[in-house]
Amino acid sequence: MQIAIVGGTGAIGAGLALRWARDTDHAIRVGSREADRAAAAADRYRGRIRARGYDVDVEGAANPAAVDGADVVVVAVPPYSVVDAIDAVADRLADDSTVVTPAVGMRKEDAGMRYHRPDAGSVTALARAVAPSDVPVVGAFHSLPADRLADLDDPLGLDTVVVGDDATARTAVAALAEEIDGLRALDAGPIENAPELESLTPLLINLGRYNEDLHEVGVRFVSR
Amino acid sequence: MQIAIVGGTGAIGAGLALRWARDTDHAIRVGSREADRAAAAADRYRGRIRARGYDVDVEGAANPAAVDGADVVVVAVPPYSVVDAIDAVADRLADDSTVVTPAVGMRKEDAGMRYHRPDAGSVTALARAVAPSDVPVVGAFHSLPADRLADLDDPLGLDTVVVGDDATARTAVAALAEEIDGLRALDAGPIENAPELESLTPLLINLGRYNEDLHEVGVRFVSR
Repeated sequence: MQIAIVGGTGAIGAGLALRWARDTDHAIRVGSREADRAAAAADRYRGRIRARGYDVDVEGAANPAAVDGADVVVVAVPPYSVVDAIDAVADRLADDSTVVTPAVGMRKEDAGMRYHRPDAGSVTALARAVAPSDVPVVGAFHSLPADRLADLDDPLGLDTVVVGDDATARTAVAALAEEIDGLRALDAGPIENAPELESLTPLLINLGRYNEDLHEVGVRFVSR
Repeated sequence: MQIAIVGGTGAIGAGLALRWARDTDHAIRVGSREADRAAAAADRYRGRIRARGYDVDVEGAANPAAVDGADVVVVAVPPYSVVDAIDAVADRLADDSTVVTPAVGMRKEDAGMRYHRPDAGSVTALARAVAPSDVPVVGAFHSLPADRLADLDDPLGLDTVVVGDDATARTAVAALAEEIDGLRALDAGPIENAPELESLTPLLINLGRYNEDLHEVGVRFVSR
């Protein structure tokens, strides 16, 4: 499988690239608006994984080139850049590809982080509205602390939750998430259910602020 | 300590009454709009705990009488009844008491449960607006599956999160929550941060619906 990470030089993009590079045989394409920055990031990621004795396929490219031929395209950019980032690669998306968005709209207030819900209803709904209609859009990876993801010595032991209107695409992204060691993927249903999922990220940040013994907080859902 | 549970005959009220009765020496006052129903519920709870060999202090009363002399008053009613329930007991609240609200506004849609945010900003803010200004209000216990709480054989192993503008009251309610075996309490700061916490409950319900192996889902926050 080929995975493109648009905005793959940022924190969450780096973490996903490193984890998939280490834990799977997928080809990872790190995208950036500037090809040079993408190539430099890919070099760093490749170096870090190879230093651990793993064989990897990680290359960098400008975002549109990174997306060419990709089965899964993770749009790892801030929420206010999601529309532009998808627009910039929309005509390069393969018919059978899936777009994945981990972004969450948040606003920093004195008391803590607040969920900032886009007019579209959620960032996932916003991505859905701008992506080509025949390409499924899945929200995932919102609740993962980026620094822990990028620290390959962290065993994680965390859950991530997927939302999307195409159940097959949800299942595929969940499977791809579970190929990362220490990650479990759960299903929250259609994109209508995204606001409650995206709201989890500011809560995790607030818990890290108000509890001395909690740092880079993730979540684990506990069944009976 | 004396704990009043207004609406103590409902699911979450029953669970809290049973757990505190079993795990602590606090006096539990089960409130209901009808004194007879409160007395009957208190009888049932007492019977269930005594059958396990514990000595308990559980009595039932009409809501205002249950609140008399209580240190902590849990308003365990549906979100649309919170204002009326607090109004009905406001003049019986002791100056040094604390009001606790576990209610979450939700709306059932085809795809799942949606967080229904009151105009006040959150149910906790709504309770804060209607309670006497010198009585602290704390939101807590939102994310606990009521049936698991009421099943004394369930070891829980769950987190609950408190929010409130009075840090001392937050700490006190967190300590009271942790007197329940298998429960850890975390702090999410002032009431402004309540919407992100209240939004967690519909997410947990949606996860129970879309994942075959998840039932009566609770949460555990995982630190680095």
